[in-house]
Amino acid sequence: MDALINKIKNEGIVINENILKVDSFLNHQIDANLMEEVAEEFYNYFKNDNITKILTIESSGIAPAVLCGLKFNVPVVFVKKSVPSTITNAYQATVHSYTKNKSYTASVDKRFLNDEDNILFIDDFLANGEAFRGVESIVQQSKANLCAVGILIEKAYQDGHAYIINQGYKFKALASIESMNENQINFIK
Amino acid sequence: MDALINKIKNEGIVINENILKVDSFLNHQIDANLMEEVAEEFYNYFKNDNITKILTIESSGIAPAVLCGLKFNVPVVFVKKSVPSTITNAYQATVHSYTKNKSYTASVDKRFLNDEDNILFIDDFLANGEAFRGVESIVQQSKANLCAVGILIEKAYQDGHAYIINQGYKFKALASIESMNENQINFIK
Repeated sequence: MDALINKIKNEGIVINENILKVDSFLNHQIDANLMEEVAEEFYNYFKNDNITKILTIESSGIAPAVLCGLKFNVPVVFVKKSVPSTITNAYQATVHSYTKNKSYTASVDKRFLNDEDNILFIDDFLANGEAFRGVESIVQQSKANLCAVGILIEKAYQDGHAYIINQGYKFKALASIESMNENQINFIK
Repeated sequence: MDALINKIKNEGIVINENILKVDSFLNHQIDANLMEEVAEEFYNYFKNDNITKILTIESSGIAPAVLCGLKFNVPVVFVKKSVPSTITNAYQATVHSYTKNKSYTASVDKRFLNDEDNILFIDDFLANGEAFRGVESIVQQSKANLCAVGILIEKAYQDGHAYIINQGYKFKALASIESMNENQINFIK
């Protein structure tokens, strides 16, 4: 998706080969118009897949996910990175974040996923797929169907991409990074 | 705002007089269409205030804030509840959450607020105003102008409402709760 790739080229900051900082339009400051274009792109790709719910992870997934919720006209659920005291009955999974070098308990209240749901998972980044595997476990526990995966930016040289493809999920990444260093970001065409 | 008040009446769960659970449409599962109506309401109220940026707090403020960003056609910045390792230069404030009974460091990268900004702060809840005062401190540090405050649900019997009014900010709450208990939620008309 050209608009997103151009934004990454213009504003992305490569911290090292594992960390791309895109906080001027996605992770901290949000370009709402770009997120609307992103949602439009995902809608065009997944509109025939009978999606009943959008699932994402707090916090940076919420903006694109909510705009997808509008396009698909379905509820959005965001996975919490903790187990709130007000949730008494949750699906849970442990996720390790390599970026932050710590683990957290991902959770979704059991009321918000069920065996009739056909889920599109939306997230800002895909790297090793740790967060994705946590989400996959939660969806499996709920007996919902994880149908499709939409990622804004993937580091295709890490393990997440191959894992999702091998599992057979319908998959779309809007910007696929082949390699990056402090001087250059190379995208897969 | 009737649509929001009706949703609270139908789906809100009063845990105790301090905690109202609205996780079926706002804090965990999100009703994107309702959030669009919310943004429309805030736009109608604040559209002549020369807003240049929407500010909110992760995570539950992001959905309504992003839809406000679209309506006002301005960037959205969400305050982080920690100081990410990739932020080297941040405005910070300590915020105590009574709901979670712990404190966190709110932060905004200095690149995303400046003395030309005219800010509309959007958040899901207003109670004691602790989070608001943290945001106010951050905005003051940045020399931006905090112009307006839009809250989805306020517990008007707690201290935040009076604080914001006394400080002279233009203020709009879409649902104002006068009192609540396990059996009933009373709204200010």
